[in-house]
Amino acid sequence: MTTLATSPATATAATTPTAAAPAIQVSPEVAREHFLDWLRDAHAMEEQAETMMSAMSGRLEHYPELKQRIDMHIVETQEQARLLETCLARYETDTSTLKDMTGKVMASVHGMASMFASDEVLKGGIMSYAFEHAEIATYTTLIAGARVLGDTESVRVFETILGQERAMADWLAEHMPETTMTYLSLAETAGTGTAKR
Amino acid sequence: MTTLATSPATATAATTPTAAAPAIQVSPEVAREHFLDWLRDAHAMEEQAETMMSAMSGRLEHYPELKQRIDMHIVETQEQARLLETCLARYETDTSTLKDMTGKVMASVHGMASMFASDEVLKGGIMSYAFEHAEIATYTTLIAGARVLGDTESVRVFETILGQERAMADWLAEHMPETTMTYLSLAETAGTGTAKR
Repeated sequence: MTTLATSPATATAATTPTAAAPAIQVSPEVAREHFLDWLRDAHAMEEQAETMMSAMSGRLEHYPELKQRIDMHIVETQEQARLLETCLARYETDTSTLKDMTGKVMASVHGMASMFASDEVLKGGIMSYAFEHAEIATYTTLIAGARVLGDTESVRVFETILGQERAMADWLAEHMPETTMTYLSLAETAGTGTAKR
Repeated sequence: MTTLATSPATATAATTPTAAAPAIQVSPEVAREHFLDWLRDAHAMEEQAETMMSAMSGRLEHYPELKQRIDMHIVETQEQARLLETCLARYETDTSTLKDMTGKVMASVHGMASMFASDEVLKGGIMSYAFEHAEIATYTTLIAGARVLGDTESVRVFETILGQERAMADWLAEHMPETTMTYLSLAETAGTGTAKR
């Protein structure tokens, strides 16, 4: 067992984990076991995110800006899944089991993703915003784990992804009052059914 | 129908909705109908939050600081539910139907809350962080709706609650790397079963 001092977290936005982690005693074997579990969970999370965002984008008819932003994040998400596979590949020679695992890891992600599939633009927006923060928290955990392992390449990957998740969350937040107004306006002029899509 | 100019949103943290909503054309009847739906959803959300946080707090054994912060937020959440009832009471003479509605409004909240009930401290923390942001987004929608209705008293209530949700989210974010380190350390010294609680 070795004592591993973790380096201070990089400067981040106000609501993102920033505290420097204390030095802890943990064996590389234990750290690696849990880190790889979290990494597989994150991969499953991104695959779910892609599926659910595609469904949401496909339903939206009257919110072109939101649809465009979601489509942009779908492309980012596909690349994120690929990047996570490169991180996993450095620990495991075989990543073909990833697909089989999607069904069993992190049932919570599946539950969350099913909400994300709301047929209503406002609840879809609320849940997307929440989902982005589940991702932000997940990568914060992963960064802490990668630092314990001294895996600077993975830290770099996670920080890149974290920036994309935060940008998506910020965009959703900024546009939420406007989306609410558009919803009410459409409900008035064209009915609630139209406002929802 | 009247044209209602909505006032600019108050200054908020970086990841919280901040854009000023545009002037829209909406009748008070339509605005009120949707606003009250969102308000009932928010009430159901807070009731679920209380139930789930109580379950999480009850399970935690080795994370005293986290448990204490959750317990503090449970008290805030009870008061938030009461404040939402006062907002509803100004529109409806009878709030006794609220309890009956909990079962059917916002199935997504129930799904999310069930994840929140994870028996694992890290996933519980990730999901709590996501749940706080679902609440933050919900109150942002409510503030936009209340402004359309000129309901300044409700705006004041929602902004108070928003501040408490943001403070809880920030606390969770700040302590996430530390919780991860404690988890790994406990997994090393006492096993994963202990680390989870």
